[in-house]
Amino acid sequence: MIKVKIIGAGGYGGVGITELLMGHPRAKIACLVDVTDVGVPISKLYPHLTGFCDLPIIGADDPKAKEPVDVVFMATPDGVGMKLAPAELKAGVKVIDYSGDFRFNSTESYAEYATRIGRDPKHASPELLPPAVYGLTELHRKELGATTRIVGNPGCFAVSCILGLAPAVKQRLIRFNSIICDCKTGVSGAGKKPSAGFHYPARYDHMNAYKLAGHQHVCEIERELGLLAGTALKIAFTAQVVPVCRGIMSSLYGELADGISADDVASAYREFYRGQTFVRLFDRDSGIGSAHVRGTNYCNLIVDVDARTNKLRIISHIDNLMKGQAGSALQNMNLLFGFPETDGLNQPGKYP
Amino acid sequence: MIKVKIIGAGGYGGVGITELLMGHPRAKIACLVDVTDVGVPISKLYPHLTGFCDLPIIGADDPKAKEPVDVVFMATPDGVGMKLAPAELKAGVKVIDYSGDFRFNSTESYAEYATRIGRDPKHASPELLPPAVYGLTELHRKELGATTRIVGNPGCFAVSCILGLAPAVKQRLIRFNSIICDCKTGVSGAGKKPSAGFHYPARYDHMNAYKLAGHQHVCEIERELGLLAGTALKIAFTAQVVPVCRGIMSSLYGELADGISADDVASAYREFYRGQTFVRLFDRDSGIGSAHVRGTNYCNLIVDVDARTNKLRIISHIDNLMKGQAGSALQNMNLLFGFPETDGLNQPGKYP
Amino acid sequence: MIKVKIIGAGGYGGVGITELLMGHPRAKIACLVDVTDVGVPISKLYPHLTGFCDLPIIGADDPKAKEPVDVVFMATPDGVGMKLAPAELKAGVKVIDYSGDFRFNSTESYAEYATRIGRDPKHASPELLPPAVYGLTELHRKELGATTRIVGNPGCFAVSCILGLAPAVKQRLIRFNSIICDCKTGVSGAGKKPSAGFHYPARYDHMNAYKLAGHQHVCEIERELGLLAGTALKIAFTAQVVPVCRGIMSSLYGELADGISADDVASAYREFYRGQTFVRLFDRDSGIGSAHVRGTNYCNLIVDVDARTNKLRIISHIDNLMKGQAGSALQNMNLLFGFPETDGLNQPGKYP
Amino acid sequence: MIKVKIIGAGGYGGVGITELLMGHPRAKIACLVDVTDVGVPISKLYPHLTGFCDLPIIGADDPKAKEPVDVVFMATPDGVGMKLAPAELKAGVKVIDYSGDFRFNSTESYAEYATRIGRDPKHASPELLPPAVYGLTELHRKELGATTRIVGNPGCFAVSCILGLAPAVKQRLIRFNSIICDCKTGVSGAGKKPSAGFHYPARYDHMNAYKLAGHQHVCEIERELGLLAGTALKIAFTAQVVPVCRGIMSSLYGELADGISADDVASAYREFYRGQTFVRLFDRDSGIGSAHVRGTNYCNLIVDVDARTNKLRIISHIDNLMKGQAGSALQNMNLLFGFPETDGLNQPGKYP
Repeated sequence: MIKVKIIGAGGYGGVGITELLMGHPRAKIACLVDVTDVGVPISKLYPHLTGFCDLPIIGADDPKAKEPVDVVFMATPDGVGMKLAPAELKAGVKVIDYSGDFRFNSTESYAEYATRIGRDPKHASPELLPPAVYGLTELHRKELGATTRIVGNPGCFAVSCILGLAPAVKQRLIRFNSIICDCKTGVSGAGKKPSAGFHYPARYDHMNAYKLAGHQHVCEIERELGLLAGTALKIAFTAQVVPVCRGIMSSLYGELADGISADDVASAYREFYRGQTFVRLFDRDSGIGSAHVRGTNYCNLIVDVDARTNKLRIISHIDNLMKGQAGSALQNMNLLFGFPETDGLNQPGKYP
Repeated sequence: MIKVKIIGAGGYGGVGITELLMGHPRAKIACLVDVTDVGVPISKLYPHLTGFCDLPIIGADDPKAKEPVDVVFMATPDGVGMKLAPAELKAGVKVIDYSGDFRFNSTESYAEYATRIGRDPKHASPELLPPAVYGLTELHRKELGATTRIVGNPGCFAVSCILGLAPAVKQRLIRFNSIICDCKTGVSGAGKKPSAGFHYPARYDHMNAYKLAGHQHVCEIERELGLLAGTALKIAFTAQVVPVCRGIMSSLYGELADGISADDVASAYREFYRGQTFVRLFDRDSGIGSAHVRGTNYCNLIVDVDARTNKLRIISHIDNLMKGQAGSALQNMNLLFGFPETDGLNQPGKYP
Repeated sequence: MIKVKIIGAGGYGGVGITELLMGHPRAKIACLVDVTDVGVPISKLYPHLTGFCDLPIIGADDPKAKEPVDVVFMATPDGVGMKLAPAELKAGVKVIDYSGDFRFNSTESYAEYATRIGRDPKHASPELLPPAVYGLTELHRKELGATTRIVGNPGCFAVSCILGLAPAVKQRLIRFNSIICDCKTGVSGAGKKPSAGFHYPARYDHMNAYKLAGHQHVCEIERELGLLAGTALKIAFTAQVVPVCRGIMSSLYGELADGISADDVASAYREFYRGQTFVRLFDRDSGIGSAHVRGTNYCNLIVDVDARTNKLRIISHIDNLMKGQAGSALQNMNLLFGFPETDGLNQPGKYP
Repeated sequence: MIKVKIIGAGGYGGVGITELLMGHPRAKIACLVDVTDVGVPISKLYPHLTGFCDLPIIGADDPKAKEPVDVVFMATPDGVGMKLAPAELKAGVKVIDYSGDFRFNSTESYAEYATRIGRDPKHASPELLPPAVYGLTELHRKELGATTRIVGNPGCFAVSCILGLAPAVKQRLIRFNSIICDCKTGVSGAGKKPSAGFHYPARYDHMNAYKLAGHQHVCEIERELGLLAGTALKIAFTAQVVPVCRGIMSSLYGELADGISADDVASAYREFYRGQTFVRLFDRDSGIGSAHVRGTNYCNLIVDVDARTNKLRIISHIDNLMKGQAGSALQNMNLLFGFPETDGLNQPGKYP
């Protein structure tokens, strides 16, 4: 049994990894750290955990927060992990960070990201950027292992777009300058904090586009697709919110390259994802949607070609709190410690 | 006061026009016709109408259904209007049909549409196709007047896409072969009839794409845009359903033509919609969404350019049951009888 | 045309009365006052009002806020109206206040209410309590007229319970100490301000009881029912929230008094509400629910008797923002100025 | 590993037990039987099961449906289990039936129930009624063991009401003729079949009472409470639907017997449920609601007294598809085979 510390335990990202660890056969929670609700049992904040996890939230300065653990999940906003990571790493603790702090390997690429979200472009721990691994497991599996010290867990939109487009870009099935990512997210992606746009009466029968001037996840999508393409590329990206709790559905488009057929597309996707447990492929008549990945770590892809207009069309579905957050984080932890990849994650979800 | 007959009165399209006529100063309902629930007061089917409209549903053979009226709304599925229209027209009654029966002016174009939805490609009243006017008021205003006898009310997705793209296509702001329409609809667009995909437990937290093999509204969108472009064009179109009751949000994309700036785009849209009451333009920071047109006849457009990727991006919002159906139908009726265009429609909706 | 001032214009109560006044033939808005968003057009806060009402929010100190008007709606929280009302009344302006400030006629009864909600039990303008009229129109119609200067608009739960029980209490159909009010409200009743319990992810699939220690609306329910009964009485009351935007459904129970039959009950209700436009009676097989009053000023009552257990059971439905707030306020304004009671309110709502 | 057969596998009750068995360490599914969709893999009907359970639906006449198993879940409507059970029992298979077929021990009590739901009052296998055990585990634990052959799984409303009231009735804390059960259910309780009342547009913002003339679950509630009371009793019961997918919240009222204090109530409940894993007690300030039992087998009770009116008030929460159906069924299976009671059920659910 490895010991796990969760920082930012009181948010949706914290409770998500807590729930998953309840069912993990090889890991147990050592402590729950946060800056608010210190002293309050987590099961008071989240009553569904009553009897499962009644640990109190403790502050970062609490002696118990400094006892040795094997891994720390930083379920914290941008800017927190970069300050706390050095001490954890020094103590030999592996770090899995949810934010954008460790998704980039250079200070330049981090600065571009930080600027997009209005933060200081200077990284607090620049020496940790080169060794950080981008935690989209399916693409970086070989870098995620016993020697990995720090993982930058991917953004939720990014997971859906990169997994949806990776085979097409890798195999040059599409023209790179024609990519459009039309993404719809459920509300839980915005986290636990109430705000005007996610107040129930303002949201229950409302859909809207937002951050039209530019969404920060574009940086990591373009970087990852660029690596696969072997050349820099730019995507058009539209973020939208719909009245769903959990779920991202990204509709991804690109003009097919010359001579590419629907069969080429289908076989490229099958080949690329062969043996990847958490990516499932479906055809356009399958009738799937976001509820079919809810509560699970799966990415379900509809692989389609619109022959009339010669376009690739991928519909990519994930649960933003699972494959888009805590699920990917746990999948990465499993790889870091040599556990079976599906430990704590082999559940179909509940329907309806 | 003109007299109005509603055929298909028991569906959402029927109740929608009934509600609007309650507040119309120059029109009154003469009778409500349908094939089911004959003899049942409409207010028994729709209790919110109690005291407002307690007329019974009558069958098409009821003598009252044959008393003279000025206009008939055919809130009926495909294939019904084409059979009933000739008799109405012969009696001097103007016909406004909700279905695809009169959206096309030639038997060939109708056949293409009919084939898409799995219907007999042969039109039952082909002689009525040439005089039929496509009822997207903003584009066909001049054809909608005292001499118009028959109107083919537009499809809901089509309204949102055509209004969103018309200025861009007309002014050749975009490359025609690059158009993508990514459309999300609320559930009421599927009508009153229960089905597996719209059962509450299957829908409340679920979004999905459907009819990926081809949606029938593509025909009228391509036809109308082609007329504006002066050349045939094809669009990529994706229909999606989200757990919203009323609302369509269409995200419309196209590659900007050479030398087109964001300012060119903005002024083209302003110019095109000058004086059109029911189209409102917003910029990308306006924070609008589908709830802001709910219950109204407005089409709200966010006009945007993604300079990074040189793309036009329009976010088009309508209420599918209003501007997408009964609202447009009433707007057309107003023009046919020379009434103020906003009669019965000048309401802001209720929020939240 | 009378002139109307709205204080607290930026909240749901403010926008509700603004929407209604757009359709009122005898009243127009003079100015919109609030403490936040001063200078911002109301249509920027509520984009659905674009083109209907683009007035800016102004501060209470703005000279325009002091220009003469005929009536002021105070769509403000508890404690505000009692401070602002004296100056308005002095200027000859009629006051309709949404809060609990003027729902009580004595300092003692106000103090009890104020204590329940944790406020100072001392009323700031005690001289205004005796002349204030409790604005549940159906019960206080005779007091609402040209000489009325100040109206305390009723609480939303209170409207549903009092209208549901009034005939039974008045006619002594039930044992007074057996009354139970089991009330479910939609979320809009909590207003515009975001909070943890009304954050979409926490609410979309969640129902819960709250304020079990005592809800403040009990005071006015017991007072009004006591007046009808001719004796003090106490009710058991449970407030619950369900994932609905607009709507209150109150299930009201009482043991039938000796010898009271279902027919006695039905005729007592019919008699009591004869000629009251905004109360509609239904039987238990009618299939009605909260959506059938949504967006309207109606109270729909299912009048029922459970013969097996000898209990009266009333299911009372209102729209909490209409008959439970702005609708009642406008109905009261109509009476104060001698307008037809249904002015601005004669609409069936939109379904679905 | 015991072998399990599921009859009625294609409905919500079938998929619920299928999901749970995926995580059960001592039971595996042998076959899935149903009358519709024969030949279709369950994962085609419920795509979230892809890779977890891809067994095809088979007909009852399929040879595989007759291979030996240890237990059969009859996730079937009323009237099916009573016909199929004899053959299963003869083959030595234990039967757990979801419907009302085996909830009653006499033909008379069954007849009363059957009449309420408009079915033939004659039971098809009357000899199986006396040995059938009512599967509300917490109350009938001693009867659920190795020798039990047939279990009548309880109705969902009944579970919430009986667990909520059992201690009060057993300890005579309340006057028996004063009991009121005001129950709100989510929509999944109505099953998979689409219908007008559960069509998304008709349900998303709608709450209503139904079956006011009498709900069939009253029979088993009165029977079980009567057994605890040692005397026959009658309850007033109101069924209501709200726009929630999973969840029942029952507000339960009774007049306190003479001399009963809040402390008496609290200790009676604590004592009654001591050691019962799946019942959790909360006080009125706990802030719990239906989402906190969603996806789990727990019954969460708020135990409260309204001292002002001398009333007991219990707020009882369950997931209707879990403790109200498949969860209870699995809990019963565990007892029948001597497995740990929590096998396959020890999960906290996912929030939000």
